[in-house]
This record gives sequence, structure tokens and C-alpha cells, in this order.
Amino acid sequence: MSDNTNSTGTLILLRHGQSQWNASNQFTGWVDVDLTDQGRAEGRNAGKLIAGAGLTPEILYTSLLRRAITTANLALDAADRHWIPVIRDWRLNERHYGALQGLNKAETKEKYGDDQFMAWRRSYDTPPPELSDDSEYSQAGDARYANLENPPRTECLLDVVKRFVPYFTEEILPRLVAGETVMVAAHGNSLRALVKHLDNISDEDIAGLNIPTGIPLVYRFDAAGAVTNPGGEYLDPEAAAAGAAAVAAQGGK
Amino acid sequence: MSDNTNSTGTLILLRHGQSQWNASNQFTGWVDVDLTDQGRAEGRNAGKLIAGAGLTPEILYTSLLRRAITTANLALDAADRHWIPVIRDWRLNERHYGALQGLNKAETKEKYGDDQFMAWRRSYDTPPPELSDDSEYSQAGDARYANLENPPRTECLLDVVKRFVPYFTEEILPRLVAGETVMVAAHGNSLRALVKHLDNISDEDIAGLNIPTGIPLVYRFDAAGAVTNPGGEYLDPEAAAAGAAAVAAQGGK
Repeated sequence: MSDNTNSTGTLILLRHGQSQWNASNQFTGWVDVDLTDQGRAEGRNAGKLIAGAGLTPEILYTSLLRRAITTANLALDAADRHWIPVIRDWRLNERHYGALQGLNKAETKEKYGDDQFMAWRRSYDTPPPELSDDSEYSQAGDARYANLENPPRTECLLDVVKRFVPYFTEEILPRLVAGETVMVAAHGNSLRALVKHLDNISDEDIAGLNIPTGIPLVYRFDAAGAVTNPGGEYLDPEAAAAGAAAVAAQGGK
Repeated sequence: MSDNTNSTGTLILLRHGQSQWNASNQFTGWVDVDLTDQGRAEGRNAGKLIAGAGLTPEILYTSLLRRAITTANLALDAADRHWIPVIRDWRLNERHYGALQGLNKAETKEKYGDDQFMAWRRSYDTPPPELSDDSEYSQAGDARYANLENPPRTECLLDVVKRFVPYFTEEILPRLVAGETVMVAAHGNSLRALVKHLDNISDEDIAGLNIPTGIPLVYRFDAAGAVTNPGGEYLDPEAAAAGAAAVAAQGGK
């Protein structure tokens, strides 16, 4: 793309807009729910923020889930970058939420108590119970995962770090080192896994980090592959702070 | 994907749904206009037709133009195949309409007469006059074509055949020979160029072939790369016949 001595790579992280299960307060994970109208509006708004900041994504990475794919489609269309190359990979998927997939968050909190609820949501290395293959919320038999050797039945954040961070390092980081602008459309917990790595956040402190829907989060990289703006920069900081607080408060009614 | 002795490849051709300039009866070419609401509905309907026929696209090819990209996004979402890999290439673009880009078809027909109008629309090897780089409808300076050595300023159908058919043969046909199901989301004239090749239509007879918007057209291939259903098969033949007649009648008021 450009010589990599002076160039600066730009990484645009985008969590999908509000999904139907964000709205109904259900654990989603790998269940492939759609966006709400508000979520679609968030996608378009994200594209306007990207264009307004003068950013020109050159390639898009998405998960295999509809809410991230549609958010990215709407954002790139609004930013007049709908024509860039696209790569989709399951390693960007949301954390598999195991047996919690489909359950209401408020009911789960009431039934199991605050401590268990927060442990399931924010424990770094303890996954929820496995989801049975015969659950209506299972992805067993889903064609898009047919080539996975060992598709997950539940995951903790550490599991997401283990699948996504090596993919980032091998597939995406070289583009940033080369000075490209890369957009990643993904999920609350897959982006938390990546941000933990980028900002070197401890296993304990990552529990307190929440990523809002639909607000682009921008990291800059030097030619050695190091982040030059630790913590990143939200393109709409006020909306991002309000959104992160709303994520932290989930489980209320 | 599968062994290629018994397998049959499936090619799904999809012309974008109604665009804003289809609706306003303007020559479009490489101008990147959006779909109308009707065009978006056509995209979703195409996806329902694809799913209803039991077809499962494994990879999508699109042009670099919004109306084809959005149509494909909506169709694949409706068919629950939004997660498949995507490849975009300018060689699937609509014919560049030269100096006609942006002009109203009825006014052009009135101004230049029926013979010149039909020659510009349907002549196989005579392009319209070139579009000036300083026209508001020019793509000179458009980032998506920056890597093209010699971006067109006008094209006849033969020019489209020369860029698209070799791409099809090298990039897409091997997948069909291997038994894959490939979806191609493109344009009236780029699909006419491909169908001319697939059905071995003469330079004269291709003038009479019209492809309707939003109706999937399916070709089957054997393991030698030959079409096994000459002429293809529209998934909604009645709607396709009506749509093709409407295309043929363009230039009226």
C-alpha cells in the first residue's frame, strides 16, 4: 500500500448496533439474531462518524454473525466505502455463551444471584456450562461452522483471546504495519478480547471494560506494530461513555 | 468442496434491484446510484427465491457498485447465507455508458432519434462518445479505480465481454467445475455479456436479450465446465418475462 517507515496504520473497531436480543435483554453468543431498527440506525451513524473523521477503510473484517455483518454493510455504505474487500472469519465471533444462550439476563440474575451472574458475564477463565447440541440455540449442524474441527459449546473470555488474538496478529496486524486502514466489525466480548491485548489490560481489570454498540473505536499503529494511542479513541466520546455505562448496567430489568 | 466427477456446479446470476436511475429513466453506467425501496424489496425477494429453490450459495462475487452490493447483501441475508465469503471486482461492473451517463433516456431518444438511441444501447461494438474526466458523472479520481491502468471513459458490450468473460473463466468457472454454488451480483449489461458467452449468442442476437432486475437466473455446469441447461432458468419465470419486457421498452416516457 505505502512504504512502512513513515506510514501509520489505523484500526477501526466497531461493535454491532443494537440487536433484537440486546433489546430483549437475552444472552446471545453465537445465536444469529438480527439488528433492531435502532441497531440499523447505529450502523449508518457509525459510517457517518467514520467519514466525518476523514477515515477511509481499505478492508473489512467481520464475524460470521448477521448483526456484525449488517452493521458493517450499513456503516460502509454510509461512508461511501461499500466496495472495499471483505474477509469474514468465525474467530471474530462473539463469545459462545454456552447454556446461557437464549436466557433472559434479568431472570438469570434473579435465579442464580448477583455473584454467579457476574461470574458468568465477566469471569476471565471460567466458562458457563456447555450448551447441549440439541438445544434450539445450538449451532451444531450450522453449515458455516462445518469446517471447524472442534466448534465450541461454551467459551470464557480467555477462550476468545486464544482464538482471536493470534488471528489478529497474523492476519490484521501486518496490514496495520504496512499503513493500511482496517475496519473490524465484531462483538462486545470479541472486541474486549482484542482491546485487552492491545492495551495490555490485566485478567482482573478487563472485567471492568465495556464496549458500547455502534461507536467506532480507533487505534493507531506505528511501523513496528505498536499502538501509538493507548486506550484508543472513540469517534463520539460522549455517546461511547453513555453506551458503556448501559452495557455495565445490563441484568437490571 | 466435493469430488468433481459427480458434482454439478450452480451459477446464480442476479441483476441488482431497481435503482434510483432505473426509476428516473437515466443512463447509469458506472455512476454509483443507490437502490430505491422497491429495489431493496427486490433484493430480499431474490433471497427468498434462492432459499425457496433450495440453493445455498457458497461464495458471492459482486461489482464495485452500490446497487449490486446492496442487492446481494439483502438477498443473502434473506436466504440466511449472509456469512459466505465475498469477492468484489470492477470487471463485474455495469458497462461504462460514456457521455450518456446521467442523461435521461426518453430525452436522449427524442433528441437523437430512435436509431441512434438503440445503437448506443444495443450496438455490440460501437461505444457512445467518451465521458470527459471533468464531468460530474465521471469516475476519474474515484479511489476504487485508482489501481486500474486504463480506466474506461466509455464502453460497448464487446468491451464488457473482453473484461468480464476472461475473469469468469479464470476465477469463477473453476469453482463451478468443482461443484460449488456461486452467486454473481451484477448489472444488466455485464450479465448480458456473460450470458452471451454461456449461451453462445451471436453478436447480432444479443441485442434482443434483456435481463430483468432482481430475479435470480440459474445455470448448471457439469464437471467439464459446460452448461447443462442452455438459456438458464429464472427462479420466477413469469416475473422475469414481465421484467425483461419492461427493460426492452425503456426509452419510452
